Order: sequence, then structure tokens, then C-alpha cells
Amino acid sequence: MSQPIRITAVAPGSIGNIGPGLDILGLAVAGRGDAVTAERTEQAGITLADPGHPDLPREPDRHASAIAAAEVLRRSGAAGGLRLSVAKGLPLSGGQGGSGASAAAGAAAANAILGSPLGMPGLLAAALTAEAAVAGRHADNIAPSLLGGVVLIRSIDPLDVIPLPCPEGLRVVLVHPAHRLRTSDARAALPAQVPLATCLAQAANVAAMVAGFLQGDLALIGRALDDAIAEPARAPLLPGFRAARAAALEAGAVGASISGAGPTAFALVESEGVGLAVAEAMAGAYRAAGFASEARVAPVDRTGVRLVRHTTPGDVP
Amino acid sequence: MSQPIRITAVAPGSIGNIGPGLDILGLAVAGRGDAVTAERTEQAGITLADPGHPDLPREPDRHASAIAAAEVLRRSGAAGGLRLSVAKGLPLSGGQGGSGASAAAGAAAANAILGSPLGMPGLLAAALTAEAAVAGRHADNIAPSLLGGVVLIRSIDPLDVIPLPCPEGLRVVLVHPAHRLRTSDARAALPAQVPLATCLAQAANVAAMVAGFLQGDLALIGRALDDAIAEPARAPLLPGFRAARAAALEAGAVGASISGAGPTAFALVESEGVGLAVAEAMAGAYRAAGFASEARVAPVDRTGVRLVRHTTPGDVP
Repeated sequence: MSQPIRITAVAPGSIGNIGPGLDILGLAVAGRGDAVTAERTEQAGITLADPGHPDLPREPDRHASAIAAAEVLRRSGAAGGLRLSVAKGLPLSGGQGGSGASAAAGAAAANAILGSPLGMPGLLAAALTAEAAVAGRHADNIAPSLLGGVVLIRSIDPLDVIPLPCPEGLRVVLVHPAHRLRTSDARAALPAQVPLATCLAQAANVAAMVAGFLQGDLALIGRALDDAIAEPARAPLLPGFRAARAAALEAGAVGASISGAGPTAFALVESEGVGLAVAEAMAGAYRAAGFASEARVAPVDRTGVRLVRHTTPGDVP
Repeated sequence: MSQPIRITAVAPGSIGNIGPGLDILGLAVAGRGDAVTAERTEQAGITLADPGHPDLPREPDRHASAIAAAEVLRRSGAAGGLRLSVAKGLPLSGGQGGSGASAAAGAAAANAILGSPLGMPGLLAAALTAEAAVAGRHADNIAPSLLGGVVLIRSIDPLDVIPLPCPEGLRVVLVHPAHRLRTSDARAALPAQVPLATCLAQAANVAAMVAGFLQGDLALIGRALDDAIAEPARAPLLPGFRAARAAALEAGAVGASISGAGPTAFALVESEGVGLAVAEAMAGAYRAAGFASEARVAPVDRTGVRLVRHTTPGDVP
């Protein structure tokens, strides 16, 4: 087999903060992702040939993919540099884990073209460095984008991530209303202190969600999908969200909340069919609030980041 | 089979607040428990023939067993009343779930002698009424005492308890130093508000403990057995505890913390042999701090409350 000239890594988007799992529970969503193509250069450091979107920075030290790739380069001690091209499949500031997917794909593409000097712990650390620089230091998007499936983040210092199974039939509904919420504003809305009773209830619900995923118990996941901290703080910034959530539950969703820092709302459902009805109900609620939206129903992505190896010069994606 | 004249229910003690699982994660410990014997009376209400300990109240409306039995009587709508005798196998104010075991046994004995009108949800609710009256409204002792094993309490309004498996080899070390800590003082030491970061870290650790129990991963249980809320607040009230905890870890414990509201300290270990070494190390640490202690190594009780039916007048326990 000839040596690949370029490698493309494609990482799925994700729901971070699943319900009560603020910063600690994430889930990869199939169907859309960010792609990063890497090739080696003699010139040291990272060259960003295409940032993937006109609104994304062209400077490598401000772009999630490039920061992650630079960290892989640094950790590997490899000579030379990397040239990156990004193809953005996920919305910017959507709450669909776009920066995490770019970071994951950047780390994975860089690592692969360098001959895979790093294992998964190194990739997670490199992607976390990037996510921390552009979105906040949390791993509940990067870990599902790299590993696929549902992931519990026990700790980021040291990194301790626990992949969880999830029920076969589970489908995810994502509804992205046409308004923007900056991650920094969404984060600023969070309380600095939490009443002890709220803290304990939140912990119980996160723990119960984990039990629900491990036991394949969708009803338990639904009962536990109850966020007493981030959702009440952020809902006022998200016009139409409360009505969309109520519509989702009425249409048969197991549970619903804000995806990441929003504005995308998500619902978990037991089947594709229920998902379509829930998506329509949620979109209807946003429409009634004056917002168009984009909805999709998708399975959980159980694979995480994938690599495509290009062995001829012409086949750039 | 003749009708039983009396029924004795024996409920094991428990560790409440397992590590980060304040109020929400408990575990039944084999080997010691409280026994409540019930017989029906024509006279309405509860008669407490023996409260089980000179320091326990003789008034039925202040004794955990009797309050639980009264609640069962009320819920069942049965005529007449019940006469109870309590045999106390667990220490008072030890942090070993004594009031929860008395409540569980009182509820179970009353229910059985009345012909089992209530199912487990009713027994849990009755025992919770008693626990709330004497120790605080939490179910992380009563649920393991009734059900056995490890139990996650997702919610008490409504009651939602999730039994978890636990690794076969797991052993529990309980070391009870000779000082007293009143549950009310231990509870008063808890902060009213918790910083958001601490709250999220605690939730992640409780969730990881649940994953550890469900996956049979003792190492994960150990990493997650890290309480950033109750333990730091209560340790200053518990002379010798920090040294005992350190000694437990050094002697090979998977993790260690305060059992319930203390003063008993517990450690989780992977085998009986390690347990004996850990018990000795912890007792040594308390001795060095000037306190005698009582230590035991026990398996998890996987059964919960048991019933003994007496069909002849003479065989009172």
C-alpha cells in the first residue's frame, strides 16, 4: 500500500449538556459532521488553507481544527508542519458541537498523517486544548465526536471519559431555530452558586440518566432528563424553546432540552416515526413564536471520527 | 399452614451518602440489622412494647419502627392495631443506617402481619415517612434496607429508586470510632449553596459511581468515590477521620469516606483479605488520634428486609 498523501478525518456533531449533564454528558449525532484534511509540509507549524466558513478565523491559533492539530504536532515531536483544509458540515454557534467536531477532526487528521503517534488519550487532550481555546474547557462535545455514542466525562483533570451504551432504537431530534445565541452569553447566564438541594437533585438525575443508558431503559432516561440548572437559566434567552419542549413531550418524546449552549433544541425519541412527529411539533412551536427552524431526526453516531486516506493527488474532497 | 401469630422483619443497616452520593446513593451491609416483631391487636393504633434501646423513645409517634408501622396501618385501611417489639442490632447515631433499618423493618413487619396489603412502593413511602420524622427526608438508607444491594434514589417526590448491581467480590469495611456526632449537627455543617463547578464535579462522580456499579468496574468506583461537598464539611467534626481515610487507601481500599452522617467511616475493598488489612489500618489511625473503634468487614447485603413468621406463641426472638 502506498503512503497516503492526505488524510481526511470526519467527526460527527454532538449534543453536549444532555439534560442535567451540564459539561459532563454528551452524545454523538449521525448525519452531519466537520471534515478536516491534513497533509504534511516541510514548513514547521500549521497552515490553514481553508477554514471551512467565511465567519471562521483564518489564523491557525484561533481555529479549533488548527489548534488541535498543532497540539498533536507538539505532543508527537514530529518535524515539519501540516496544511489543513476544513469542510464545515455543522452550523456555527448552533449548539450542535461544531467546534468540538472541528477539534476532533483536526486532531485525528493530524495524528493519522503523522503515522498515529498518539492514542485516544492524546487525541482527547489535543481536542480539549482546542475546545478550551474557542468554546470553553469541557469535553462533553469532543469526546462523543472522537469516540461516538454516549460519553460520560467524570473528570477533565485528569481526563477520565466513560463510554456508555445506548438503546438500539433511540433517535435524536435536533431543531435549530433561526436565531443565534453566543456560547459566551449562554455560559454567562449560568448561576455561580447552586442551592444544595438543586445540586443533589441534578446529580441524582445525571446518575439516573447514566443508569438508563447502561440498562437500556428509555423511560428512565426520560424521567431523568430534567435539568434544574442550565435550562431554567438559558430558556429566557431562547424564544420559543419552552413551547418547543412542551410540544416535543406532547408528541411523544422521551425527553427534551437545550442542545449544548443552544439555540438548537433536542428531543430523544424511541423510533424514527415518533421522531418525525416530534420534529414537526417542535418546528411548529418555533414557527408560532415567529422563528423558522431546521429540523432533523438522526440515529446516535456510534463510530465517532472516521479517516479517509487519499493516495493520489487528485482526490481532495 | 396456620396463620402466623407474630411476624418479625429483620432489615440490614446501610451506608448512606456513598462518597459523592449525598442523599441519593446507598448500599445495604450484611451482618447486622434491626428486627421488629409485629402482632395484631384489637386496640387501634400502635403499641410499642419494646423500643429496642434505653435511649430510644417509648412513644410510638417518635420511634422510626412505630411511625413506619402506623403509616402502613393507615395506608392499608386495616381495622385494629399493632403491637411492636424492636431488637436493635445497629448502633444509635452511628451513621450505619439504624433509623432507616428500624423504619424498613417496622414497615415490613406491619405489612406482613396485615396480609401484605402494600407493595414495595407503599413500603418505601411508609419507611420514608418514618425516616423523615426521626432523621431527615432522604431515602438512601431506607431503600437499601428494604431492597438490599446498591440503590440510586433519583427522586423522593415522586419516589423513584433504581436498584443497581454490584461487583461480586466487593466488601465493605465499617469502622465506628468511639465518639458521637449527632445527625442534626452533621447536617447543619452542610453548605446551603455550592459553587457551580463543585456541583458539576459532584454530579459527574455520582454518575461515574453508578456506571462503575453497573459495569462491575471497581477501579472506576474508586476514582469516583470523591465527595467534594459533605466530606470536606463534616471531616472537621470527625477527629481521626482524615487519617483513617488515608490509612484505608494506603492499605489498598478502592475508596473510603464517611458512612451516612458519621461518625462511622467506611471503605470499599476488592476482597475479604484486603478488607481485614484496611480495617486494621483504619482502627490504628483512630487509635493514634485517641479513639477506640469497632471495625468489621462485611459483604453487601443483597436481600434487604427478611421476614420470619412465628406460628406458635412461644418463639419470640
